[in-house]
Parts: sequence; C-alpha cells; structure tokens
Amino acid sequence: MVSVFDLTQEAFLDLIHQKDTEQLSYLAQEMQAVDFAEFLEDVGIVESVYVFKVIPNDRMSIIFSYLSLDKQKILMQTFSGGQIENLLAHAQFDDIVDFLNEMPNDIVLRVLKHATYEQRHELNILLSYHPDTAGALLTTEYIELLEDDTVKSALAKVRVQGQSAASINTCFVVNNTNRLLGTVRLKEIMVSNEEVLIADLMETDVVSVNTKDDQEEVVQAFVRYDLATIPVVNDQYNLVGIITADDALDVIKEEATEDILRMASVVPVEGSYLNTSVFNMFKSRIPWLLVLMISASFTGHIISKNETLLLILPTLYSFIPMLMDTAGNAGSQASAMVIRGIVVDDLNIKDYFKVLFKEMQSSLLTGFVLFAVNTLRIAIFMPSVAWQMALVVSFTVYATIILANLVGGSLPLLALVFKVDPASMSGPVVTTVVDALALIVYFAVAAMYLGI
Amino acid sequence: MVSVFDLTQEAFLDLIHQKDTEQLSYLAQEMQAVDFAEFLEDVGIVESVYVFKVIPNDRMSIIFSYLSLDKQKILMQTFSGGQIENLLAHAQFDDIVDFLNEMPNDIVLRVLKHATYEQRHELNILLSYHPDTAGALLTTEYIELLEDDTVKSALAKVRVQGQSAASINTCFVVNNTNRLLGTVRLKEIMVSNEEVLIADLMETDVVSVNTKDDQEEVVQAFVRYDLATIPVVNDQYNLVGIITADDALDVIKEEATEDILRMASVVPVEGSYLNTSVFNMFKSRIPWLLVLMISASFTGHIISKNETLLLILPTLYSFIPMLMDTAGNAGSQASAMVIRGIVVDDLNIKDYFKVLFKEMQSSLLTGFVLFAVNTLRIAIFMPSVAWQMALVVSFTVYATIILANLVGGSLPLLALVFKVDPASMSGPVVTTVVDALALIVYFAVAAMYLGI
Repeated sequence: MVSVFDLTQEAFLDLIHQKDTEQLSYLAQEMQAVDFAEFLEDVGIVESVYVFKVIPNDRMSIIFSYLSLDKQKILMQTFSGGQIENLLAHAQFDDIVDFLNEMPNDIVLRVLKHATYEQRHELNILLSYHPDTAGALLTTEYIELLEDDTVKSALAKVRVQGQSAASINTCFVVNNTNRLLGTVRLKEIMVSNEEVLIADLMETDVVSVNTKDDQEEVVQAFVRYDLATIPVVNDQYNLVGIITADDALDVIKEEATEDILRMASVVPVEGSYLNTSVFNMFKSRIPWLLVLMISASFTGHIISKNETLLLILPTLYSFIPMLMDTAGNAGSQASAMVIRGIVVDDLNIKDYFKVLFKEMQSSLLTGFVLFAVNTLRIAIFMPSVAWQMALVVSFTVYATIILANLVGGSLPLLALVFKVDPASMSGPVVTTVVDALALIVYFAVAAMYLGI
Repeated sequence: MVSVFDLTQEAFLDLIHQKDTEQLSYLAQEMQAVDFAEFLEDVGIVESVYVFKVIPNDRMSIIFSYLSLDKQKILMQTFSGGQIENLLAHAQFDDIVDFLNEMPNDIVLRVLKHATYEQRHELNILLSYHPDTAGALLTTEYIELLEDDTVKSALAKVRVQGQSAASINTCFVVNNTNRLLGTVRLKEIMVSNEEVLIADLMETDVVSVNTKDDQEEVVQAFVRYDLATIPVVNDQYNLVGIITADDALDVIKEEATEDILRMASVVPVEGSYLNTSVFNMFKSRIPWLLVLMISASFTGHIISKNETLLLILPTLYSFIPMLMDTAGNAGSQASAMVIRGIVVDDLNIKDYFKVLFKEMQSSLLTGFVLFAVNTLRIAIFMPSVAWQMALVVSFTVYATIILANLVGGSLPLLALVFKVDPASMSGPVVTTVVDALALIVYFAVAAMYLGI
C-alpha cells in the first residue's frame, strides 16, 4: 500500500522541537489520520500535548481516535474543557464510546460534563448498549428519508445529512414513527425524475440487525449479503443507526484471532502481544493448563493400572509418546476442520451424522496409510521388535486415528449444543481426551496379544 | 438478522412444479439474491434450468454468482448462447472471473465466445491477474473524474457512471493519461458550487494498492485506514480499478480461517466442510500426520534409552502422559499468542528478545502455580508416592513450562525468517518438539534424584 507522505519519526520530532506549527497543521490536515497518530504515539507526553494544541480542531478528534488507550488516557487528563468540547464537536460518536468504555469513571464524567445536552443524550444511549453487540457498533450518522419524500426533497435531505453521514451509497426510508420501511440507493435517486416518490424507488427486502444482536451475527450478515452498510433496529423495528463494512472488518479480525487463542486453550485477551502485561498473560493461560494437567493425570492412571502388562513387555513403553502425539494430532486436525466449517459455512448439530460419516471415511484412509508406514518403519529400523508387536502398535494407530477423528469432529458440534464456544473444543482439550482413549485401546490390544 | 421473506424449501419447489412463473419472477426480483440462490441450490437440475429460463434477465447473473461451483458448472452447460450473453450483460465482472478461474477450459472458451469484443477484452485483462492478488479482487465499475472537471460536469458523470458503480461515496480523480491523482467524496461535490474545480476539492494523500499486491496487504490497508473502497493502480500508477470493503471481508474470513487449519497442521483446503471430498480431506491431513508420527518416534527413543531408570522406579511411568500433555499445551498457548500477535499487530523477528523475555516471565509465574498444585495433588491423592518423587515430577513440570513457552514463542517468529507460514508452527509441531524436551528433562532430573 502506498501513502504519499515520506516522513521519518526523527523529522516529525524535529518539527515539534522547532515549533513548526504551520507544517504540523498541514500534515495533520493532509496525512492519513492513522499515519499521523502513529508518529504521535512514539513522542513524549509534553510533545504530544503541544501537537494537540496546534493542529486543526476538526482533525484533532479523528487523530485522537487512532491513539492507544494508554496515550488517550494520559492526553485526556491534560485537555482543557475547550479541547474536550472540540473533540466532541468533531468526533464520530462510536469512536468516543469505544474510548469511554475503556476509561475510568472520572474521565467519563469529565467528558460528559463538557458535552452539550444533545451530545450527552446520544452518548448515554450509545453507552447503554452492551459491548460486542450491534448497538455498540452503530453510528447514528446516516441519511434518513420518509416514504412520502419526493426525489427533489430527498436530494435536499441528502445534501444536508450527507455532510456527516458515514455512507451515502444507501439512504434509509422510515415512516413517521421511525419504523424502517426500506432502502434506496442514492444512484437511483440521482437519475430519477424530481416528482417520483421515494416509496416507489425503495427496496423493501431489507437485511437488518437488532441492537442486541451479537457482533458475530452482524459480521455474518455482512459476509452473506455482501453489504456495505446494514441498518440497526430496536425491538419495535425503529431505525436507530447503521453499521458500516469497515467496522465489520475490525470485528472479524478481532473474532477470528480470538479463535486462534481459544483453539490453544488460551482465554482471549485484548490488545497487542507486547502490550499485554505478564500477569494478564498468566491469567489467560493458567485456567486451562490446570484443568488439563489434572485431566491428564487420569491418563497416567491408565498406565499405572496396566503396570503388569508393561513389566511383561517393556517395549510397549517406547511407543507411548508416538501414540499419544498421533492421537492428539489427528484429533486436532478433525476439530480444526469442523471449527472452520462452523465459522465459515454454518455447520451445525443437524449435520452431526454427516460429519461423523465423513470423518469415519477419511480416518479409514488416513489410518490405513499410517498403519502401513508404521509397520514398515518398525520392521526396517527396529528389527529387535517382534512383528506381532509391530502389528499391535500399528493396529492401535489405526484404531486411534478413527477414534481421534470421531471425537475431534464431534466435540466442536456438541459445544454448540451446550452454548460453549466451539473453538475451545480443539487442540489441547481434544488431545487430552483422545490420549486417554489411545492408551486404553493400546493396552486392550496388547492384552489380547499377550492373551491376558 | 432479518429478511422479510418467509419461504420454505417445499413452498419454493411447489412454485416450480406449478410453473408459477409470475411468483418466481417476483421472488427473484425482490428477495436477496443469496437467499434465492440458497433455495435454488437444493432443487434438481431440471428445475434449476427452468427457473433460470423464467426469472428476469437482470437478476439471473447475480443469483448465478451465489450458487456453488458445481451447480454453476452444470447450469452453464445447459445455457443457450442467448442466456450466456444475458449473464455477461448484467454481471459484475469480478464475479464472472472468480467463476471462470475455477471452470474447465471448454466452459471458459464457450463464455468468451459469447462475449462482446469489449467484454472479452476486459475479461482477458482480469483473468491475467494472479489469484490472491489485488488484481483478482478489483472491479472496474467506479466513478472516474478528471482534475479539470467542474462540479457540474462531475455530477453529470456521476449520474451516468453511478448506475453501474460498485460504490458512489468516493469518486476517483485521474489526469488525461489515467494517472491517479486523488479522491473526492460525492458529498463534497453535492454541496459545492457548480463552477468549482474537482482539483480544488480532491484529497491527494490517497491510500492505494498495486494490482500485484497480495490480497493480505489489501486487507491490511482496509483495516488500518478504515476504508470503504481502495483504488488499485498498475506499475505506472494508472488507475485500473477499485476494491470494495465487502470483498475485503470475504478475503479476511478466508485467510483467518486458513490459519485455523494450519494451526492444527492441516494443509488448507478451499470450500465448505461438507463439500470437501474424502480424498481431499485425506490429502490435507496425511502429510503432517506422517511427519509428526515419525518425529514422535524419537521421543519414544528417549524412553527406550532410559529403561534402566524406569525399571528402578516404575512410578516414573504414570506421570509421562501428564508431562507430555502439559508441555504440549503450554507450547501451544505460547505459539498461539505469538501467531495472533503476528497476524494482528505485526509482531516480527525484531521483537524476538522482547517475546522471549515476556514468555520467560510468564512461564515463571505459570510454572510456579503448576508446581505447587501438582505437588499438593500428589501429596493428597497419591500418598504412596514418595515426596521426593513428587518434587521430581513437579520440578519437571516447572522446567517444562519454561522450555515449552520459550519454544512455542520462538517457532512462529523463526518461521517468518524462513518464509514459512507462522500458523503452521503451532499446536502439533510445537507439541512434538516440547514433548521430547519434557521427557529429556524428566529423566535427567530423575537420574539426579536416584544418583545415577
């Protein structure tokens, strides 16, 4: 990606030290806000305060919205009442709400104190939505038309409301009780005759979400219907705001990467790796590690209970790590494919038997290849092992693959039934379960072979 | 999400069997295309062909674009020349290209044969872009203005080009050699005086991508700059198309879920779980299973080499599964957090020592808790185990956690250096490595304890 300003951190700092307000204002105006914020992120607090004093008022709030929470918090404490008023006057309210949601109470109260009556009213509504719902993502800046508007009156409204609207591709049509009736594309309006009624242009099969819908549902609607914006309604189907695709992008990035953590049995943490405190890192990892350590001890009991077998045939030991690892890997593979299916193509419990059948077929094939390779490997590289023993191990591998694929394929779907995140039914959890199964099969087969 | 049509699959099929062309046309027109396509997906081929004959021409291509590749392929073989011409006349060309990229040669040639000269020219350009690049994502339907356009002439262009444009929020400004100069928001144009020049309204710090940029870079630009559209230029910085946020959403969903598979050592496969053939499933899983099975055998050797120890102290056995599982889990957790860091906040090899230091601190804390819990657990529930033995196990747990976190944190970053996807350095791979380390530590500590 290309942005036209070539500026180094040093040059940026020089501008501040030379108090070149003109150039700083120019850059704040012309550069992408996120790029300007990135330079600002790494300068000291005194310098940052200075920059916020000299840059244009209308750029201040957008640049502020791209700073880290820590920086925002420190800066906010230095802002004068006038600066806060400026910030509110030019801000996107969803950005302000994101920020306030993370701030301590004294900062929230200070901001609300400097808000106008209307701003405070709107902020209070937005703050009342639960984070991670459609309500928390919406912006109230959109173009609203009435069904009995004509093209002429609609265009007049677009000129006014369009100034602050997050998107003007689509206009939203409501009746006089604010109930959402449909949508009209601005391009339809622009080429229609002045007297045509909006009611005659609008499309009525509108995809919308409720303020209380989870943000994951919002993303699904965007992906399924290839939307650029989606209207948000309350329980009375009144239009309260819209969500734009770029917000959906942020959510999808956040959610998809949360799955990465859940799949490794880490309790999701927000924020970047390097900014996460050691203690938060510890907190996010220790719960599952403890649970799984205790669970794995039961696998140990399986070994203890079969000590006689192991004393008769000590070679049995040396295959245990391979069996456990292979079981865990096969289980993780199956669960990952099913988790992806749930995320990408709405796989659900109704498909349970189809999934089982598919995993069964796939495991028969995979297991066969591993059976063959393992038998050959032992025959060639471990000539001291009896061929019957090699068959015991290979047969266990085969059976383990089947069990691991069935368990790995089942757990994420069963998680859905119990309203648990399917992504947490993967890697470590699946491994712990199938390791135990692998050893049970191993000792059962070995016992049969030894005739006890 | 809410869509207003309540229609069952049976009712849809009834409409076809009753040859209710009027109602089918109405639904094809008014329903969301993806919903209509979903109903169509599950009806037989004869019925599908019939539906495509009766629905309006302008809806045919968008509904077609939402069908599965299999269905598209079968239908395309039944289409008359006239139907193909209709499809091309109303299609988004990026959809057509997505489809042609997956089709056998005879179908591609047949479609190209029925294209007009201009359509063929454009399709050939789009087909020449490498899949997974910005070129393959772009659409050529956007609003293009010249720098010396006035607001009046610009609005006239918007009315014409806006009809087919993918987005009209932003207009793209070029000079007469088609070099990208800047962007103007339509809302700025709409409120400006008729004689104002576009050059005076446009913003010049434009974020753009090159046709050859990887689709992952495109997504990063969308996320970083909160864009709704991004212009795509060639090496001469000529504007060749735009990409819209909904396409970026599809890419991000695809890429993020590929990581889910890689993290479980599955070679990524495209398409839905249920549509993936058993053989493709087998192919995507067997390579890593084989590699890891062979690697895990080395862990077995560690046990074989320590048989003397195990004969002296058989209790050592029963802790092996717990040690292996805990090592694997701790390693997976660390690698998942680092992988997420790489995906979300550009963690890279320069941060290597910071990551190691952080993992070290976190592992000291985590290891300590596991040390304590494990010692207590053995003391309370396994009174037959000597306290020295309990300490051997607990100390091994502690050391293992440290090693596993360091290895798990390192591998994804090292993968970057060797141009390997970091996501594949996770779960199973990390587990296999740290399992071996855990056993080496275990036997070393046990040997010290036994004084051999």
